[in-house]
Amino acid sequence: MRTKSNPGVTKRVAIKSAAVGPEGDDVAVEEPLEIRVAGDAISVTMRTPGADRELALGFLHAEGVIGSIDDVGSVAHCGRPGDEAFGNVIEVLPGAGIALSPERAAFTRRGTLISSACGVCGRSTIADLVARCAPIADLSRIEAKLLARMCSSLRNEQPIFARTGGVHAAAIFDVLGQLRALHEDIGRHNAVDKVVGTLLLDRALPARGTVLVVSGRSSFEIVQKAVTAGIPIVTSVSAPSSLAIDLAVQMNVTLACFVRETTLTVYAHPERITL
Amino acid sequence: MRTKSNPGVTKRVAIKSAAVGPEGDDVAVEEPLEIRVAGDAISVTMRTPGADRELALGFLHAEGVIGSIDDVGSVAHCGRPGDEAFGNVIEVLPGAGIALSPERAAFTRRGTLISSACGVCGRSTIADLVARCAPIADLSRIEAKLLARMCSSLRNEQPIFARTGGVHAAAIFDVLGQLRALHEDIGRHNAVDKVVGTLLLDRALPARGTVLVVSGRSSFEIVQKAVTAGIPIVTSVSAPSSLAIDLAVQMNVTLACFVRETTLTVYAHPERITL
Repeated sequence: MRTKSNPGVTKRVAIKSAAVGPEGDDVAVEEPLEIRVAGDAISVTMRTPGADRELALGFLHAEGVIGSIDDVGSVAHCGRPGDEAFGNVIEVLPGAGIALSPERAAFTRRGTLISSACGVCGRSTIADLVARCAPIADLSRIEAKLLARMCSSLRNEQPIFARTGGVHAAAIFDVLGQLRALHEDIGRHNAVDKVVGTLLLDRALPARGTVLVVSGRSSFEIVQKAVTAGIPIVTSVSAPSSLAIDLAVQMNVTLACFVRETTLTVYAHPERITL
Repeated sequence: MRTKSNPGVTKRVAIKSAAVGPEGDDVAVEEPLEIRVAGDAISVTMRTPGADRELALGFLHAEGVIGSIDDVGSVAHCGRPGDEAFGNVIEVLPGAGIALSPERAAFTRRGTLISSACGVCGRSTIADLVARCAPIADLSRIEAKLLARMCSSLRNEQPIFARTGGVHAAAIFDVLGQLRALHEDIGRHNAVDKVVGTLLLDRALPARGTVLVVSGRSSFEIVQKAVTAGIPIVTSVSAPSSLAIDLAVQMNVTLACFVRETTLTVYAHPERITL
């Protein structure tokens, strides 16, 4: 049973030690989404329903399968409304004269079946990305206090989180503070794919002069998605990982974490931040 | 550069708006780990180094590739100390007379290459697990205040989090409050694999009369790992997802979330909890 107003929130029976309500408790929806490219299933992600087109396009762009919206003929849920799994399989078909190669989805991803002769390490993981993307040349600058305002604005504009306490969010702002996209999802990586997919549909990639704001920690995968989207600045209220920092340093991405009203910690390329 | 005392913490240059220290800032280590079974790479996960054997064994147990430690001949990092990728590839070899079948790793996982004729939905995702595991028969009971004590004890025993603010943790306690395993990791799912892998090495699976405590939200994957490890109670200070609740209801797992000193919300099988 999903509420009509928001596909990301549903009701479940809950027993609260403080007070028991018969109406049920709002919880964040988690459902699998299978992403298909021209008939081939290439990924299943556990996600919060909503903005599935943006999620599929953002994911395929980050993986290098599509370069722009011109590569895409259509993106739509498979099957018919009323089928049990309807809404949980989405298919991307190539544009006229375009051949998409899902096997280009070459990134090291958790759980992906891979074959590696020489083993893996942080350096080779970064090298894979360097081989595909150039460092960010965009030299946009931003005031630290504006980053703080973006982080608090992200928290204030999370309708699913407000009702459930159970989702992440990601937003893209321009460096003047204008919101370009904001999405919530049970997976932080999905929320990032959704905001990048929104800009892809708007023909706004690479996303010059923008900031990616995430609600949780900044891991390698988050910075990787910023790099492939051409976003020069990544920020969050939480901590970064070692590999996220190393990637940001190498790809010329500014990484500002632990952002509070009057303090922040910059781990890579502070030259874009004015205090 | 990793600190000798803890492989999960390293130093990175950081510029703090408040005060700048030349000594660098503690950050959580994120590095890829490739898990091999008898020569075949079956997964790469981004993890915090430390307890890699437990991580590999817990992961393979959750995926149904190994049933007990008797299926395992050896588990060790590949290559030689000093090689660049040393420590980031781990291989599990079968015990004498045992044939391991990594293709049994059949769960729907984010990013896994899969093929599905009929599509996916929450119900079919749960059905896949029901086909492999019986509902938890264990009827152990626990006091709500002991769950609260476990959650706060998890937070107090996180050395990497205390220094970096950047990792999750999971612990297994018995219902009397005795700690059986505790691990930190940048990925919540990895932390759970590490604690389950610890019990596997201790020949303590299925984990009757135990509680799985996680630091973050309770998603489908967390409850799934509890089911395959035979853990009857899952708890956290944060929110559950819809699919985690549905799975817990169906597999007879008690799911208690938003645990505070004097309140909690029970989403599945409250009969194991005494207030």
